[in-house]
Amino acid sequence: MKPIVSIIMGSTSDLPLMQKAAEFFDQLQIPFEMLALSAHRTPREVEKFASEAKGRGIKVIIAAAGMAAHLGGVIAAITPVPVIGVPIKSSFEGLDSLLAIVQMPPGIPVATVAVNGALNAAVLAAQIIAVGDEKVAEAVEGYKAGLAQKIVKANESLAEVKFAFKTN
Amino acid sequence: MKPIVSIIMGSTSDLPLMQKAAEFFDQLQIPFEMLALSAHRTPREVEKFASEAKGRGIKVIIAAAGMAAHLGGVIAAITPVPVIGVPIKSSFEGLDSLLAIVQMPPGIPVATVAVNGALNAAVLAAQIIAVGDEKVAEAVEGYKAGLAQKIVKANESLAEVKFAFKTN
Amino acid sequence: MKPIVSIIMGSTSDLPLMQKAAEFFDQLQIPFEMLALSAHRTPREVEKFASEAKGRGIKVIIAAAGMAAHLGGVIAAITPVPVIGVPIKSSFEGLDSLLAIVQMPPGIPVATVAVNGALNAAVLAAQIIAVGDEKVAEAVEGYKAGLAQKIVKANESLAEVKFAFKTN
Amino acid sequence: MKPIVSIIMGSTSDLPLMQKAAEFFDQLQIPFEMLALSAHRTPREVEKFASEAKGRGIKVIIAAAGMAAHLGGVIAAITPVPVIGVPIKSSFEGLDSLLAIVQMPPGIPVATVAVNGALNAAVLAAQIIAVGDEKVAEAVEGYKAGLAQKIVKANESLAEVKFAFKTN
Amino acid sequence: MKPIVSIIMGSTSDLPLMQKAAEFFDQLQIPFEMLALSAHRTPREVEKFASEAKGRGIKVIIAAAGMAAHLGGVIAAITPVPVIGVPIKSSFEGLDSLLAIVQMPPGIPVATVAVNGALNAAVLAAQIIAVGDEKVAEAVEGYKAGLAQKIVKANESLAEVKFAFKTN
Amino acid sequence: MKPIVSIIMGSTSDLPLMQKAAEFFDQLQIPFEMLALSAHRTPREVEKFASEAKGRGIKVIIAAAGMAAHLGGVIAAITPVPVIGVPIKSSFEGLDSLLAIVQMPPGIPVATVAVNGALNAAVLAAQIIAVGDEKVAEAVEGYKAGLAQKIVKANESLAEVKFAFKTN
Amino acid sequence: MKPIVSIIMGSTSDLPLMQKAAEFFDQLQIPFEMLALSAHRTPREVEKFASEAKGRGIKVIIAAAGMAAHLGGVIAAITPVPVIGVPIKSSFEGLDSLLAIVQMPPGIPVATVAVNGALNAAVLAAQIIAVGDEKVAEAVEGYKAGLAQKIVKANESLAEVKFAFKTN
Amino acid sequence: MKPIVSIIMGSTSDLPLMQKAAEFFDQLQIPFEMLALSAHRTPREVEKFASEAKGRGIKVIIAAAGMAAHLGGVIAAITPVPVIGVPIKSSFEGLDSLLAIVQMPPGIPVATVAVNGALNAAVLAAQIIAVGDEKVAEAVEGYKAGLAQKIVKANESLAEVKFAFKTN
Repeated sequence: MKPIVSIIMGSTSDLPLMQKAAEFFDQLQIPFEMLALSAHRTPREVEKFASEAKGRGIKVIIAAAGMAAHLGGVIAAITPVPVIGVPIKSSFEGLDSLLAIVQMPPGIPVATVAVNGALNAAVLAAQIIAVGDEKVAEAVEGYKAGLAQKIVKANESLAEVKFAFKTN
Repeated sequence: MKPIVSIIMGSTSDLPLMQKAAEFFDQLQIPFEMLALSAHRTPREVEKFASEAKGRGIKVIIAAAGMAAHLGGVIAAITPVPVIGVPIKSSFEGLDSLLAIVQMPPGIPVATVAVNGALNAAVLAAQIIAVGDEKVAEAVEGYKAGLAQKIVKANESLAEVKFAFKTN
Repeated sequence: MKPIVSIIMGSTSDLPLMQKAAEFFDQLQIPFEMLALSAHRTPREVEKFASEAKGRGIKVIIAAAGMAAHLGGVIAAITPVPVIGVPIKSSFEGLDSLLAIVQMPPGIPVATVAVNGALNAAVLAAQIIAVGDEKVAEAVEGYKAGLAQKIVKANESLAEVKFAFKTN
Repeated sequence: MKPIVSIIMGSTSDLPLMQKAAEFFDQLQIPFEMLALSAHRTPREVEKFASEAKGRGIKVIIAAAGMAAHLGGVIAAITPVPVIGVPIKSSFEGLDSLLAIVQMPPGIPVATVAVNGALNAAVLAAQIIAVGDEKVAEAVEGYKAGLAQKIVKANESLAEVKFAFKTN
Repeated sequence: MKPIVSIIMGSTSDLPLMQKAAEFFDQLQIPFEMLALSAHRTPREVEKFASEAKGRGIKVIIAAAGMAAHLGGVIAAITPVPVIGVPIKSSFEGLDSLLAIVQMPPGIPVATVAVNGALNAAVLAAQIIAVGDEKVAEAVEGYKAGLAQKIVKANESLAEVKFAFKTN
Repeated sequence: MKPIVSIIMGSTSDLPLMQKAAEFFDQLQIPFEMLALSAHRTPREVEKFASEAKGRGIKVIIAAAGMAAHLGGVIAAITPVPVIGVPIKSSFEGLDSLLAIVQMPPGIPVATVAVNGALNAAVLAAQIIAVGDEKVAEAVEGYKAGLAQKIVKANESLAEVKFAFKTN
Repeated sequence: MKPIVSIIMGSTSDLPLMQKAAEFFDQLQIPFEMLALSAHRTPREVEKFASEAKGRGIKVIIAAAGMAAHLGGVIAAITPVPVIGVPIKSSFEGLDSLLAIVQMPPGIPVATVAVNGALNAAVLAAQIIAVGDEKVAEAVEGYKAGLAQKIVKANESLAEVKFAFKTN
Repeated sequence: MKPIVSIIMGSTSDLPLMQKAAEFFDQLQIPFEMLALSAHRTPREVEKFASEAKGRGIKVIIAAAGMAAHLGGVIAAITPVPVIGVPIKSSFEGLDSLLAIVQMPPGIPVATVAVNGALNAAVLAAQIIAVGDEKVAEAVEGYKAGLAQKIVKANESLAEVKFAFKTN
């Protein structure tokens, strides 16, 4: 079974965060790979990865990076595969990595999600794969339906909070 | 006794903060309800709530949300009932939720209070109800008069601080 | 006919902006007054205004101010009447006035709208008055229904834009 | 020929900007539609659009919005189709719309591009379609190859700039 | 001995910070008073204080406040006595209080120091008093001379740090 | 007649702005000097100026600078005379110069006014001189009283604006 | 005569700004080259340039880029030659490009100058070359001495400004 | 053995951070000195240091400072030796010190690295020295080659993370 999504991160310190993406792909049975690559420390390995990704069957790439986050942009410059950027927060509340990822020049987009938004990167990747894969499409719809359940539980909790003038 | 204020929040993690609003309504004997609703996870429930709020006798709605906080704006788009938005701080010091709530387009205001300003949302709601309800108006004035008491106590504390050249 | 809304501004340079609020009240037949008052240049007149507003029948106050915008907060400190703050943009893209208005301390809210959001201040004021005034409530609902018309016209414009692969 | 991409905008004032996206789809022969919809002025039409989009064969949605930009998030809350958000700059240098679009809560991503990044939204949409459509994939690769040509021309221009100590 | 400096704060929670100012005045033998006053909770007491300050012999006023910090501006609107504003950090890294204090409109300055800069407010107050008081002027110069001593000690510490290639 | 205030600026491009300060001193008959000095281009002249200022009878120094504005801080490091910093806006809406002036380290304050706040720097300087000079004190009080007049005129203008439902 | 400095820019639209750097090298007789290269549009040409720069005798590289500015960082990842980054202002007042350049991860610095600081990039490049080249060192010192002349002229201009109470 | 690099810091509280720079120089066998100097507390010592640095054989100066960080700029104003500025984070996430260091006026650059970027300051200093020193050049290239090793280890760690659908 070959991977169709690559999760790229610059160091293993990002692993606890990016694990949420991995768990999501596992839950939806989407084969994926996890790799450490750095636009700044291993530029030639990044280029090799980006050049070969499409040929290896990769359909979406998730690149997580912090500070002057170049990883997503550098990969997107080479491959036609959609690249999702996850801004990692390590300084300036993540504003530096957010701007360094989202503000790409005309012609080379990186699909940016929230600061530390590893799960949303995975959901977006699944939505992209679902465009051409009905089985994944069903799994995504099932996932979205499940989101409403948290709210049901939240309302049960709120119902238990007692005040004299609370009337629901 | 039917509620006249709705306190809406996206998850029970906002409860400790929003409880300050609930306590204020309890203290002023204003009947209220607390509900969990999410613009993103339960959009249809939000629409149902907003469509029915006025008919159910709700006079003011308080919507607390964080990050790309859409809850207040989505409710305000549907109901003519005044909506008060409480930006919840979870990233960017709350700047993202503040801007996502206060910067509403022409025609659809959300009355925005300070980041995490649950109490002030409740005070504002009471002031709005007081416009047409003399009993609540009196309670609001009593509350405001009480605020000055904290300062009296603060001065008593400061009076006890001793320095050689402190002369009050 | 006595005014029930006060539009307060620090100088006549804010008049072109605040005129949108005036026009809205005119359209909805809500009697209003417009006054120039400055928290910094005429502090005692501000206090007098705030102390007397409720007694004169004022139900909502709109205070527009820029930079270190204190006007709304100073009025809200004195009167129980709901105060709506309009941050005027003159520096820092209006961030200074937005924060100086919205970040009020516990107990003294100012209902803040978007930077330069004069129209939304008026709509919010009408929504607040509508809580206890069915005629204004109807006018507000009529106004909100009208907002959708702009979109109808926009779609007509978009329908006229021709592209070879545009298919709506 | 049915559209497979929807370009949604809140008003025709966004048309000059979003036209770049339309031209890109025209160039790549991707059938698209352009619609005006507002999360705040026509919330029910937005819900109808989002509910029906997948069934109508829409594969990617581009939502352009400014200020407290809720459009993309509100659509993404309902449809499993990938939603690309374009933050429109109208205040705060576009920071308000950027944060209101990109900072979506867990489970509901909006793929965000640069402020005013209409072209990049279209390129990203084409990349997403290309995942399951080899013909579009080739068109995207052709487009990316063409980007390098601008640089060739730029170098020709620079070669003509003469300085005594310029030696290339 | 009558006070010539007033240290004003909104609550006793600011006392640990403002104590640095008090200690400085004690050290320089400048008689001072400490008062709790709130622009929002006790507006009339603030006005009374500001109106009487000059007549009571107060030469400089230090006003510490956080969030939408109005205290310094409200006092400066009434008294000709120089007002020093200390932005207190409680949200937005103190940016809200800094802007709410420093961005005063033309004609009504508040001399602003760094966020949480209680000591600097006291040093500035002493420098202002020193303009007309040679004894305080000498004390200020003595204080400034002492500042260099910290650097001497720092160099002694650095001299003890050993590295193979460290050569001073 | 010897100057008692120095207005320092880095280049004549700041003159149109700083002229407001000069005009204020002229109006209040406070003798002043205007000098061009740069912390970065003429560091030794700055040090000479700062070392001699007090001895020459200078009571307050106003330093206007933009970008990484060091001028005020460098002067304040040397002289015990109070230094007022005017942040000049040339980039980042003036945020760089504001922070570079106001965020001085403990022990060395610069009294900071609003971005481009030349007039307020002059008013503050006069208030500081007034602490020990009753004639200037009277002039300052006269100036402050005059500020209220602008509001009177503003109200006259507003009175002339006619709306059907405007009732003042 | 071979170039020892490379000025790299992403498009000819940056030429008017970067010309200041070219003129400075011309004035100091430092041979340089100007090239258009884009981290996003011509990633392989960037890598080739960076790999060969040192071997071709390049001692310093100046990279100008805007928005999510990756150019300097991508070059610095490959070459040991010092890279100076010039953030170009095109959005967010240049904050996006400043952060995308300066916030490089540990091990791969880019020497960052002010937003649009083309001249300072050239001065810094000359200072770096001067470390090992006495002739350039002399030219740099001559340039710095000349900076003080602007101030002399500024003082002559200020001397001509007449006010009744201006006394220098 | 005389030092060729100076590491300057304002207080010993910066030592734990700047020690990374010292360790780097030790590892590359570059002789260095560490000094405490403050632009604000010891301005004359700073001037003396800057005036003499080049004559003493110093080739690069690293200046670390926080808040309204003037140290690098004040040194750069006097010496032709390249100055590297390290913004220290103590407030505003380090934005104040970053802007106060990087936004230098034309003619006087400070080579700025990331907030708290002590190691990168040292790497940059070594790269600058390497321009005229082949032995240091080799050491720098060795260091850069070593950076890739961290990524190799990271990939080994990632390979050990097991998921059902992880396929690398």
